Amino acid sequence: MTVNQTEMHPTRWGDPARARALPDEARGLVEMVFGVDDRPAVEHPALAPSALTPELVAGLEEIVGVGHVLTDDETRRLRTRGKSTPDLLRARVGDLADAPDAVVRPADHDEVAAVLAFAVEHRLAVVPFGGGTSVTGGLVARREGFAGVLSLDLVWMKRLLSVDHVSMTATLEPGLRGPEAEALLAAEGMTIGHFPQSFEYASLGGFAATRSSGQSSAGFGRFDALVVGMTVATPRGRIDLGTAPANAAGPDLRQLFLGSEGTLGVITSLTVRVRPVPAVQVYECWRWSSFADGATAMRTLAQSGLLPTVLRLSDESESAINLADPAAIGGEAATGCLMVTGFEGEPAAVEAKRAAVTTVFEGLGGTYAGTAAGEKWAHGRYDAPYLRDSLLDAGVLVETLETATFWSNLDRVYTGVKAALEAALGQPSLVLCHISHVYETGASLYYTIAAKETDDPVGQWRAAKAAASDAMLAAGATITHHHAVGTDHLPWFEREIGPVGVSILRAVKADLDPTGVLNPGVLIP
Amino acid sequence: MTVNQTEMHPTRWGDPARARALPDEARGLVEMVFGVDDRPAVEHPALAPSALTPELVAGLEEIVGVGHVLTDDETRRLRTRGKSTPDLLRARVGDLADAPDAVVRPADHDEVAAVLAFAVEHRLAVVPFGGGTSVTGGLVARREGFAGVLSLDLVWMKRLLSVDHVSMTATLEPGLRGPEAEALLAAEGMTIGHFPQSFEYASLGGFAATRSSGQSSAGFGRFDALVVGMTVATPRGRIDLGTAPANAAGPDLRQLFLGSEGTLGVITSLTVRVRPVPAVQVYECWRWSSFADGATAMRTLAQSGLLPTVLRLSDESESAINLADPAAIGGEAATGCLMVTGFEGEPAAVEAKRAAVTTVFEGLGGTYAGTAAGEKWAHGRYDAPYLRDSLLDAGVLVETLETATFWSNLDRVYTGVKAALEAALGQPSLVLCHISHVYETGASLYYTIAAKETDDPVGQWRAAKAAASDAMLAAGATITHHHAVGTDHLPWFEREIGPVGVSILRAVKADLDPTGVLNPGVLIP
Repeated sequence: MTVNQTEMHPTRWGDPARARALPDEARGLVEMVFGVDDRPAVEHPALAPSALTPELVAGLEEIVGVGHVLTDDETRRLRTRGKSTPDLLRARVGDLADAPDAVVRPADHDEVAAVLAFAVEHRLAVVPFGGGTSVTGGLVARREGFAGVLSLDLVWMKRLLSVDHVSMTATLEPGLRGPEAEALLAAEGMTIGHFPQSFEYASLGGFAATRSSGQSSAGFGRFDALVVGMTVATPRGRIDLGTAPANAAGPDLRQLFLGSEGTLGVITSLTVRVRPVPAVQVYECWRWSSFADGATAMRTLAQSGLLPTVLRLSDESESAINLADPAAIGGEAATGCLMVTGFEGEPAAVEAKRAAVTTVFEGLGGTYAGTAAGEKWAHGRYDAPYLRDSLLDAGVLVETLETATFWSNLDRVYTGVKAALEAALGQPSLVLCHISHVYETGASLYYTIAAKETDDPVGQWRAAKAAASDAMLAAGATITHHHAVGTDHLPWFEREIGPVGVSILRAVKADLDPTGVLNPGVLIP
Repeated sequence: MTVNQTEMHPTRWGDPARARALPDEARGLVEMVFGVDDRPAVEHPALAPSALTPELVAGLEEIVGVGHVLTDDETRRLRTRGKSTPDLLRARVGDLADAPDAVVRPADHDEVAAVLAFAVEHRLAVVPFGGGTSVTGGLVARREGFAGVLSLDLVWMKRLLSVDHVSMTATLEPGLRGPEAEALLAAEGMTIGHFPQSFEYASLGGFAATRSSGQSSAGFGRFDALVVGMTVATPRGRIDLGTAPANAAGPDLRQLFLGSEGTLGVITSLTVRVRPVPAVQVYECWRWSSFADGATAMRTLAQSGLLPTVLRLSDESESAINLADPAAIGGEAATGCLMVTGFEGEPAAVEAKRAAVTTVFEGLGGTYAGTAAGEKWAHGRYDAPYLRDSLLDAGVLVETLETATFWSNLDRVYTGVKAALEAALGQPSLVLCHISHVYETGASLYYTIAAKETDDPVGQWRAAKAAASDAMLAAGATITHHHAVGTDHLPWFEREIGPVGVSILRAVKADLDPTGVLNPGVLIP
């Protein structure tokens, strides 16, 4: 068995073969707004040597086998941090100081458990690694107090363990990336239906550990809602959860491990709800005269039980620069706000839902804008991170952040966070926003910013991020809708859950991981 | 302000004015199957005197006010245990040994918090009391090691604190019983849509603390899915949860308090998702040639996104004795299995859903059985517990229990638990079953049993319950779908969540309630 997957470039997103220069229209926009300031990345950032002693390497090899404990620079470079803009900015200037000392590749639950026991015995920090797509510093473990840092790479744990066509569930290993899981399930006529922007690289374990939410969440649900069972290896022992679709047998302990970001245990298998592969997929667009009108239309659908599979709405600024169609960024755009609706399923059900949505939207003043723009969105849905790399090359800082709140509070949060970002970034800058996840009671707000890089782009972004995070909490919103806490959100997360919440998490952490080897510094305040 | 509510009789369910003798048809069935053995209940069971010292009473009065610390026998009798058959059987023979020493009635969050601090200081056990409808021993706190047992009666905490017509949420206090909450919300055009059989007496706090599921769960969702926020008073301090409809800010801590059964804190307010009061309610019936065929039809709806608001299916035995229509029990019944479907909402949506369900059911071989039987079910939906009292009067042991599992495992669980109950109860006995809560991946199984009482009916039931519980776990199902753990389910709950799960719960308990005053003996193994 070989590790047959495309590795992401250490300083860029995704498949190096898909990297491309900035499209002409976008480069024109950059030149006009910011001025191009080419900033090439360091090609091969240097690493500190591995701190792991030969004895520790040998001990780990006894567990996972020779060849599965890797300490070479190239492998360690590929397991350093995640893919937030600060992660990339540091890598681009040659800073890979958070590189692990070794990459350890267990093959199954028992090997994971044995690695954890070894780590406890030898005080090694363990960072579970799936797709490496964290954008909140979830892969940056604290090194102090440990004899070394291991990247626990789940790349060998990619099996589809079982499928249940009657219950419509599947049990899979956590190392499967999105497309790998979907390919295995497609052979069974099944889909998970979880398609976040990180889909091409992120892993099932990561989806669960971060409570990810995908672009089809309106139709398929958030990832945490798809998980019906799991097995977790903890330093305290193994736990198997999920005896029924739902029960009243005490608190739902699955919900403690969902969102636990590798700090309470390592998820070694997941049982997820699956659906039939949709026969039809239709993506189309509507235009609204204002962001508020579009949001009202979304709320109307959510509260009427009429949600399509995909439902996204860009604000005026995002609509104006065609962010939904990277190839057209900077080109001419219609006015108002662009909404993407996607319908997936059996043809009759899709047509019925489309007709019902059309009736609602026409009644609320929406303007149908056809399928061409919707198809462009669907075609480019995983491309935005490549665009970010191209903009970083041109000296333009680009990053995203998100929050969520209740419908009645949406405008307050939207304007508060936007104003905080604009004030912090100064001019020239762009602050764009869209709603991409809706619920009966509220919705997410996802911001994309662009600004001319200063001499300290990491500090520049940290300041803007802090201002936005303060604004979220001031407006009563959450610090993160679907990107988890990591290390970047810790101060605000602590305020969001309060001292009793912090106390609970610390108690659970102390119980399951008393020596604190699991992803130290992440999530737990 | 007066406590303006109907109190349940200490030895019976519900409103004494609604108690009635066994209907003739049912009495005929009892005579034929079991032989009637009249067993009148003790009228006024005696109580041990309150163990609370006058100093402790005075200390509590300082917190909640004179008149809100009640130690009289009548009040304490009404706060003794819950309404399981063993609870009733013991009360009926005069055993109220678990009576609290005082009933304390706080008016708001701060008074609850102060009572908890007082209880910690003076080592008083605290049993949160909402509706008193527990059927799993959830109100039977361990007395050993405590200076007394307080029933923390939430009867003064019945306010609708706020409504949000845009987000469609409402914030309510935990002491509101089902009909009280629905009446307050109906004035706003809203409904929670949570209607368990205990609806007329159970409280919102209890729904949350036990992860209750109502008869309209197919349409409205389980209660835990309706909770978007909560405030909880714990000995460690106050926690406010629910900053967004959903987020990725660590584990969902709401899910620790949902199902916590008063052992981790006292829920002092709840924010729940609400829906418009349905304009139309239609209940109708279908017949299926077998339980398996009916279950397949339910699964088809659940996996097609076509669930009605109410969906219930009785097995052959339950259908044969007309359990869905208490007035007709023992009368003539059609063969096969009776299904109740209920549709609620706007007329056009109801008709569309009915038509779609009809198409599916006709395709699967169901026989439409009209609205009359459906309306009878809806009319009598809260009456079964009264029937239980009448049967206990006649010397017939009656009790229920439930479980849930995945669809592919449903028949194994159904037959395994049924066989265990039949073997344990011997002859003559009845073991009836229905499915009343369905999910995409599985369903609940709810059993009702009747047997001629032995001289030790509590022991008789305990043996049958243990056999059924063992059979559930042996078949991989959960110990409880919607009745919580209490004290009765503890040994099986411990097996279900395993040693790591037990360790987590104990750690959270030790953190939030280090002296263990909250509902000792309940839930936490």
